[in-house]
Amino acid sequence: MSKEISQAVIRRMPRYYRYLGELLDDGVERISSNELSSRMKVTASQIRQDLNNFGGFGQQGYGYNVKYLYEEIGKIMGLNEQHNIIVIGAGNLGQALANYMKFEKLGFVIVGLFDVDPALCGKSIRGNRIEMVDRLAEFVHTHKVDIAALTMPKENADAVANQLVELGVHAIWNFAHVDLDLLDRDVVVENVHLSDSLMQLSYNIVQSKDKRKA
Amino acid sequence: MSKEISQAVIRRMPRYYRYLGELLDDGVERISSNELSSRMKVTASQIRQDLNNFGGFGQQGYGYNVKYLYEEIGKIMGLNEQHNIIVIGAGNLGQALANYMKFEKLGFVIVGLFDVDPALCGKSIRGNRIEMVDRLAEFVHTHKVDIAALTMPKENADAVANQLVELGVHAIWNFAHVDLDLLDRDVVVENVHLSDSLMQLSYNIVQSKDKRKA
Repeated sequence: MSKEISQAVIRRMPRYYRYLGELLDDGVERISSNELSSRMKVTASQIRQDLNNFGGFGQQGYGYNVKYLYEEIGKIMGLNEQHNIIVIGAGNLGQALANYMKFEKLGFVIVGLFDVDPALCGKSIRGNRIEMVDRLAEFVHTHKVDIAALTMPKENADAVANQLVELGVHAIWNFAHVDLDLLDRDVVVENVHLSDSLMQLSYNIVQSKDKRKA
Repeated sequence: MSKEISQAVIRRMPRYYRYLGELLDDGVERISSNELSSRMKVTASQIRQDLNNFGGFGQQGYGYNVKYLYEEIGKIMGLNEQHNIIVIGAGNLGQALANYMKFEKLGFVIVGLFDVDPALCGKSIRGNRIEMVDRLAEFVHTHKVDIAALTMPKENADAVANQLVELGVHAIWNFAHVDLDLLDRDVVVENVHLSDSLMQLSYNIVQSKDKRKA
């Protein structure tokens, strides 16, 4: 059913999930699309359109059941099962990911950390012992691994990513500042390019300065 | 001139900049839109359309001058001047940003790190001494600060963000997992929501599993 849904819609779903989670924490049971719209600062028609992609959920004149909608969006996003993550690159960013507890609440559990630097070998981050990359194959064979986060330099990212896919890891969360060359492979990739994000910010800084001057 | 350009186009520009930088490193002086297209895996017509937003740069039958295009895109993105960044929240992620040298090559220089945890006070990351947040106002008054990166818990993010805008910081790179409430303020915000990115990945994992089964 959901095969045709655009990535733009999917990109908005985590935000719905976050807002609904907050409403749930506040004890709100029902919400109209107008109320949700004013909280989230998107139009009510956008909300209805987005949710209709998944078959609706609202009842005319009755609003949305917060808990039900929260759980359904969670299921759509695959949050009803645990995802095990290994992190390749145990530098600052890799360690930051491993230390970040909020991911676990969403079902994303970091189960392994790898690096090439022998100085890091044996160090533990929140119970995960840093292993050397040459033990990757053995680890993936003996553990369930759903996602590999690449927080390593871009130079080796392609090679490691392809090795991971061969080992049966079909999802990569890529922080390396490169577009991975995984053409024709059966793998999903989500990029977090921090430098790109900074550049977009600086573009908008220039624009807003121009506006201020005008 | 560039006021009407959509954020979708802007979001693609860092990628052009990255590819052109690599071509430059490889000593390539000219490139046709067809060649650039096959490298970047976007259509040549998309490339021409994107660049035409800024007035073109290509010569019919002659291709693009790599160095010129690289520099022009750099100027468009505001990379021709230095941007000073302060990081609020000197935990793992804040320290990871402060340690990341690649930002500096793009002109983004971290000049200060702040936290509320007295245990961190006085610790240095790449020459930046971690200061307590109560010294923020004094610091911003005596230093040029262009961007504040928020790598702190979401609970205080709104308050700190609003304080920063009052102090004259007009750009926020927000890692806190919340939409900042800065309505009507003269500020540009770029969000990096890592949990959202993970959820998008897990959605695509579910889809690709379904496809594999089908």
